Formats: sequence, structure tokens, C-alpha cells
Amino acid sequence: MNLILLYKDDFVEGHDRVRLRDRRLKHVLEVHRASPGDELCVGLLGGERGKGRITGLSSEYLEMDVQLGLAPPPALPVTLILALPRPKVLNRTLAAASSMGVKKIILINSYRVEKSFWQSPALKNDSIEKQLVLGLEQARDTIMPDVVLRHLFKPFIEDELPDMIEGTIPLLAHPQASALCPRGIEGHVILAVGPEGGFIPYEIEKFSACGFLPVRMGERTLSVESAVPAILSRLF
Amino acid sequence: MNLILLYKDDFVEGHDRVRLRDRRLKHVLEVHRASPGDELCVGLLGGERGKGRITGLSSEYLEMDVQLGLAPPPALPVTLILALPRPKVLNRTLAAASSMGVKKIILINSYRVEKSFWQSPALKNDSIEKQLVLGLEQARDTIMPDVVLRHLFKPFIEDELPDMIEGTIPLLAHPQASALCPRGIEGHVILAVGPEGGFIPYEIEKFSACGFLPVRMGERTLSVESAVPAILSRLF
Repeated sequence: MNLILLYKDDFVEGHDRVRLRDRRLKHVLEVHRASPGDELCVGLLGGERGKGRITGLSSEYLEMDVQLGLAPPPALPVTLILALPRPKVLNRTLAAASSMGVKKIILINSYRVEKSFWQSPALKNDSIEKQLVLGLEQARDTIMPDVVLRHLFKPFIEDELPDMIEGTIPLLAHPQASALCPRGIEGHVILAVGPEGGFIPYEIEKFSACGFLPVRMGERTLSVESAVPAILSRLF
Repeated sequence: MNLILLYKDDFVEGHDRVRLRDRRLKHVLEVHRASPGDELCVGLLGGERGKGRITGLSSEYLEMDVQLGLAPPPALPVTLILALPRPKVLNRTLAAASSMGVKKIILINSYRVEKSFWQSPALKNDSIEKQLVLGLEQARDTIMPDVVLRHLFKPFIEDELPDMIEGTIPLLAHPQASALCPRGIEGHVILAVGPEGGFIPYEIEKFSACGFLPVRMGERTLSVESAVPAILSRLF
């Protein structure tokens, strides 16, 4: 928790004092081991970052005077399309993508996505939000990414994707691609990452027909949770 | 398991037939759902890769005729120095580094490494090997990385590191560094990655005095498990 994310409900007595009681209190007590007078990095969800000076701290609550004014770090110009991974990998990948500055994530179905994954509690709104918040706290960001779910592959690819990719660079991560993933790219990228085992040929054809360029990272096939940070950091 | 890693003990009746009974059998039955006659990607630990044609498959054993002849993928020219992370993160980071082709990993102590981490079962040889094997299987590699442990920070930095960095590019991942991490580098890199919370100023000074250049990935502080794939894919 490199930044303590503040919500509007945290504010008491006007605009510059917050009182926190939840996991943020626990973290400040147990990990930061902070004391009254200490300054912590804070940020208002969807807003600016700044400092919080601790004015009160007990096992019951944490009170801080906050001063905002610093913009959040820039977002990555990328939309991430991810074949729904198994729940634990989904959690870690959401947190990692959020920490790297991805602001739009589309979870899609694919032939090699197990049907049971769509029933996982990891797909509930509060579970997704929890992972995204972990990523924001890690990277000192305040802008919540948008995560949407698309259960049906074909309608998504045929009906939604064509409009979405206009004016973007659409790339498909594919270990058997002949093109290498570009480096230090300019422009908005739409990046599709397949499931463990990869997209099937039909799916790759559909992406290609839509204008996606299949690219590989090298000779090695990476797991989804390594591939996402690896590709993003190579692209930007 | 994109490659089934074979050990010398797996071979029966000469040099080209193997019989497997362990988690590899389970994986071929439950994930690959393979049948006799199918060909699977295999590789001999420390040796060549090739194909295994299934000649027998039951709940008891998997038998394959194997033909090797393909070299493993090239290693990354990097030595990874990692402040010992908490056990779960260690496991995932070892697997990720192994999948990306890191062949030398040095786990070191640092002020912000919790003492209890050094007592974790995750540091036992068989646990470390398990994670490294997962990485090799993922990336279709056969060359086991070497992992060493250094419990004492100062003797490692002062006595071992100076010889180790000769002829290499020594880089220290440090979110507050003024230099950006280079891209597409040539030469052997020694990369030091700190604990969650970062190396303390004294430790950064020791690395710098030894010749390490502190570099950052951008404005965002990444978790260890995202930082390692992100930095490696940016460097090479």
C-alpha cells in the first residue's frame, strides 16, 4: 500500500480531514507502523493525490489531515482484452494490470476458457474492485480501471470490436506469430491475450480478420500473469 | 505444461522410451486429454527437446517413444539478485523468472525482508525446484536455473558482488531513480530487485558504490512479481 486510497465517505468535518477504520487502518498500524505526526501518501479515488498527516491513531481509527493537489500518474494508452483466466490468475492479473496503468479491461470467453471460470466469485464486482484497488495502491494511482465481461466470443468480435479498434493499434499476443511484439510504441493499443493453451486457430482467424496483428514475445510461451506485465512493459 | 520435462530415470528399455507415473501422467490425462498415437512436446532435463509419441496411456502410467534433437531456447543473459520476497511471491517469481529464461538467481537479505521469510518451506530445495520446473515446462525449456541464497547482505555486496559484476551491466531497480531502465540492451546484465517497500538508502548506497546504476520503470512502483517480468522484457 504505497498510497492510501480515500473515498468521499472517509471525509469528516469538511474537506481535509479523514477518519479510516478498515484494512487501511490495519495496514498503517501493522506495516507502516506509523505514529501521529507522520505523513503518508494518500489519494482520492478518481481524483488527486497528496499527503495525509496523522492527527489521531488507535486500534479503533486513523485520522489524517489531507492535502491533495498532485495529479495521478498517466494511464497506459491500452485496452486489454483478456480471455478469462482461472480465478487466482484473474485476481493477480487484474491487480498487475491496474498497477501498470491499464484503464480498460475486457474479459472475454474463448474455447479454452473453462466454463466454470464464469461462475467464480472472483468475477463479482466487489472482488474485481478489490484487486483493482490493490493495483492502484501499489502504483500510487487513483483512477479506477473499467472492467467489462463478454460471455460470447463471436458477437463481441463481430459486433463490438470493429468500432472499438478504429484509430488504435490492434495486437494479438500469440506465441506462434511470425512478427515480434513492437517496442516503445506510440498510439493507443488494443491488446488481446489468450487463455493458457492459447486462442484456437478459429479465434486467431477472427481477430486477424478484424485487423489484429499476431505478435510474439520471443521463443518462450509465457503464462498469462507474466505475459501481461512483460508485453505492456515492452510496448510502452 | 507446454513441455513435459523428462529425467534420466524416466527412460526404460534403452534411450528412446519413457514411462511416467507422477503429476505429468495426471496432466496428460486431465489437461492434454491425450490418446495413444498423439505427439507431445518433451525435453530432457539439461538436454534437448523433441517429440514424445504416446505408445501407452492408462491411469497407471504414460509411455512414450521420444525423439530429441532440438536445442532448448536461448537463456536470457541476466543474473537476477532478488531481495527475498514473502513465500507465495517467491514461488510465483521463481516460476516467472524461470519461464523467461533467467538461469542464475541470487536470493539476498535486505532490511525490509522479514526474518521469518528465511524459515519458509518455500526455500527448501525441492520447493524451489518445483517452481523452476513449472517455469521450464511453461516456456518449453530444459535448462534448470541455479538458485543460491545469501543470508547476509554486507558480506555478499562487499565480498562476492565486485567479482561477479566484472564485464556485466549492473542495474538496480529503484522506483525513485532518475535514470529510466534501458530497452533492448546488449550484454550480460546483473539486475537487483528490492523487497516490497524497496531497498533502504544504505543498501542503495552499497549497490551504487559497487557500480550499480539505479533505474526506474516509470512513475509507477510495481510489485516484485510484476516488476521482474516487466523489467526483463524491457531489457531484452
